[in-house]
Amino acid sequence: MTQPTIIYTRPVIALMTDFGLGDGYVGVMKGVIAGIAPDAHIIDITHAVPPQNVPSGAWILATAYRYFTKNTVYVCVVDPGVGSTRRAIAVHAGDWFFVGPDNGLFSYVLAEQPVQAAVLLTNSTYHLPNISSTFHGRDIFAPVGAYLARGQAETFHELGTPIDPITLQLLEASLATRRGPTIDAHIVHIDNFGNLVTSIPLSMVPELFTTSQVRIIFPREGVVVEQRRRFFADGPAGGQAFIYSDSSGYVGIAVRNGNAAKTLGIGYGASVTYVTPA
Amino acid sequence: MTQPTIIYTRPVIALMTDFGLGDGYVGVMKGVIAGIAPDAHIIDITHAVPPQNVPSGAWILATAYRYFTKNTVYVCVVDPGVGSTRRAIAVHAGDWFFVGPDNGLFSYVLAEQPVQAAVLLTNSTYHLPNISSTFHGRDIFAPVGAYLARGQAETFHELGTPIDPITLQLLEASLATRRGPTIDAHIVHIDNFGNLVTSIPLSMVPELFTTSQVRIIFPREGVVVEQRRRFFADGPAGGQAFIYSDSSGYVGIAVRNGNAAKTLGIGYGASVTYVTPA
Amino acid sequence: MTQPTIIYTRPVIALMTDFGLGDGYVGVMKGVIAGIAPDAHIIDITHAVPPQNVPSGAWILATAYRYFTKNTVYVCVVDPGVGSTRRAIAVHAGDWFFVGPDNGLFSYVLAEQPVQAAVLLTNSTYHLPNISSTFHGRDIFAPVGAYLARGQAETFHELGTPIDPITLQLLEASLATRRGPTIDAHIVHIDNFGNLVTSIPLSMVPELFTTSQVRIIFPREGVVVEQRRRFFADGPAGGQAFIYSDSSGYVGIAVRNGNAAKTLGIGYGASVTYVTPA
Repeated sequence: MTQPTIIYTRPVIALMTDFGLGDGYVGVMKGVIAGIAPDAHIIDITHAVPPQNVPSGAWILATAYRYFTKNTVYVCVVDPGVGSTRRAIAVHAGDWFFVGPDNGLFSYVLAEQPVQAAVLLTNSTYHLPNISSTFHGRDIFAPVGAYLARGQAETFHELGTPIDPITLQLLEASLATRRGPTIDAHIVHIDNFGNLVTSIPLSMVPELFTTSQVRIIFPREGVVVEQRRRFFADGPAGGQAFIYSDSSGYVGIAVRNGNAAKTLGIGYGASVTYVTPA
Repeated sequence: MTQPTIIYTRPVIALMTDFGLGDGYVGVMKGVIAGIAPDAHIIDITHAVPPQNVPSGAWILATAYRYFTKNTVYVCVVDPGVGSTRRAIAVHAGDWFFVGPDNGLFSYVLAEQPVQAAVLLTNSTYHLPNISSTFHGRDIFAPVGAYLARGQAETFHELGTPIDPITLQLLEASLATRRGPTIDAHIVHIDNFGNLVTSIPLSMVPELFTTSQVRIIFPREGVVVEQRRRFFADGPAGGQAFIYSDSSGYVGIAVRNGNAAKTLGIGYGASVTYVTPA
Repeated sequence: MTQPTIIYTRPVIALMTDFGLGDGYVGVMKGVIAGIAPDAHIIDITHAVPPQNVPSGAWILATAYRYFTKNTVYVCVVDPGVGSTRRAIAVHAGDWFFVGPDNGLFSYVLAEQPVQAAVLLTNSTYHLPNISSTFHGRDIFAPVGAYLARGQAETFHELGTPIDPITLQLLEASLATRRGPTIDAHIVHIDNFGNLVTSIPLSMVPELFTTSQVRIIFPREGVVVEQRRRFFADGPAGGQAFIYSDSSGYVGIAVRNGNAAKTLGIGYGASVTYVTPA
């Protein structure tokens, strides 16, 4: 710590896909990366994005990317349109680089970070020699990410044709919408503990823990949650659900020592109405 | 091998949590670590500890930690009490460092290794700037582990207030108890093959393969296992269960080319009575 | 890129097992490797090979190994015969090294690559001091792989007694068999998306996308697939299955935005008859 020259910095490549870990797909991508950027530290965000679920992948990336060091290269593949006309892109946004399909996967990043540049991945020098029609993660995105990690910003513009960031795909309706005293939102994530995470940023509801009468309604399921707790350990006993501030920066619903998704019968994508005191 | 100066040593950080791999939680912890200790080799022990099951996590750690190199830093998070008054600690025990909640997760380590020092993680210099109430893995344990890996023993005492190791939480009843010719124990782990691992250390039953009439009884399920085999490949055909010496150093029960847990209908935590010849 | 001396090369060790990620087994293997070869880049191919399914493991390895850099050491453990008389081996084939049980796991590699040398792992200098009867992954294969990665070819012959490659175990009937206008094959893999991969190499059926009347029949399930598409995104809507060229280099069957295995009711190992125009 006192001798910074000792610290050996390695490029970081963070991977997120919907490939699962049951096949060799993720391992092969890492093999390709290690061959090009032997030095890189490869970190998995997750490979369990629900298959082909772009909004879910976009949200997981949104909660993770800020915690990685400057110049991290994100290689993200949730890509139902592989082999079609969807564009393959790299984006330099904020302090990071994002590589993947142009299908909305980077929507939150693009909404939150200034875009410095974006390119189409048209330069095949940075791809594997043979491109399959179904596995661009291996053949295009992994090698591009590895070259980018090796050369960083200098390489960026060699990757292909520049594109106007305004043309990048964004997911619609992925954010919360305020309508008078209510906010319309939905469940964007269910975590390993069964906690339900809504699309309502905590910054949108500063009154959450300071006023009375806040509640969350699941209109379709007929569920109302009124209890609120700042801390998990203070959650009501007896399996009652409560509203809490999720570590992702969004409003969540949990059951203490239990599984809120199962207890309440709420699934991914469920509509949520947040009601503030009028 | 003949030129030791070529060997580049990197600090090792081993992670164990109950976060699963479906969310970005583990990836975010690694991102935080890589930002602080770019050099570190991050190794997953497992992230599939059954949610909030501290005894199960403690046992998995017990079977793993001895195989890691000196000075490895273990960051372990199975933490049902996050946000409550449970203490956040680091322990220097044997040749290793352990970081996590003070809730019994390190019980086996503390029983097996001399504790050199223990501290409360009160020095916020080594935490992330904003501490959430629900994700101390990211905000406290990961950065502390990373700083520790970078500076090792020198940093240890800067992490916070020293505490008396005698005050560290231990799990009760996690060990096997001898009563005359019988030992009362329970199932502490079911592995990927369905093998049942008991809490009976092999060192407690030196007679296991050398005397006759040893048997294991599951009193609640009414199951008796009498066959014993040193080697898996010698297990009885036809799906009969047998007692074997598990690679973890504990007594196990298996079915050759089968799944003992399913075949016998035995679950995690089941009571076990080991009967030795009187 | 222009200054090759900057590039720091690290040995790569790729792991494939059927251990799952729920236990600490894989983590322990990595701990052992990091202690011997601190420098190594450890990459997981997968640890979700179906338990004890050697043909499935062999196939996953076959689709992955070519994408890893020269001198990569593969440590592969799908080992129902552990503790029996099956041999423990290392094989130098093509540009890579393979370490594991001699049970057919390397069948595709041996069929595709020239074998330069093979040894029995009889030299206990390169093993852990205590060898369990059930966990050779930890006690033999991981340390051998690590020493090999450190010393590479020089170390290879020190690992044990040379053996004649002709004596290495091969899986029978794992390849596709042509009989006149038909090819008999089977399903060797079902991926995370439910795509069915057959044992028919694309190189065996150059006519796949250029002639009419090609079809695939599942005789036992009474299913016939006639649609063919070069690109996923061109797949027929409405859930109809189609034949495609899988990125693994084999013929596959998919359902666009769906799960072919579930839709067609086809499982791992199912018999397949490929019918070409006579």
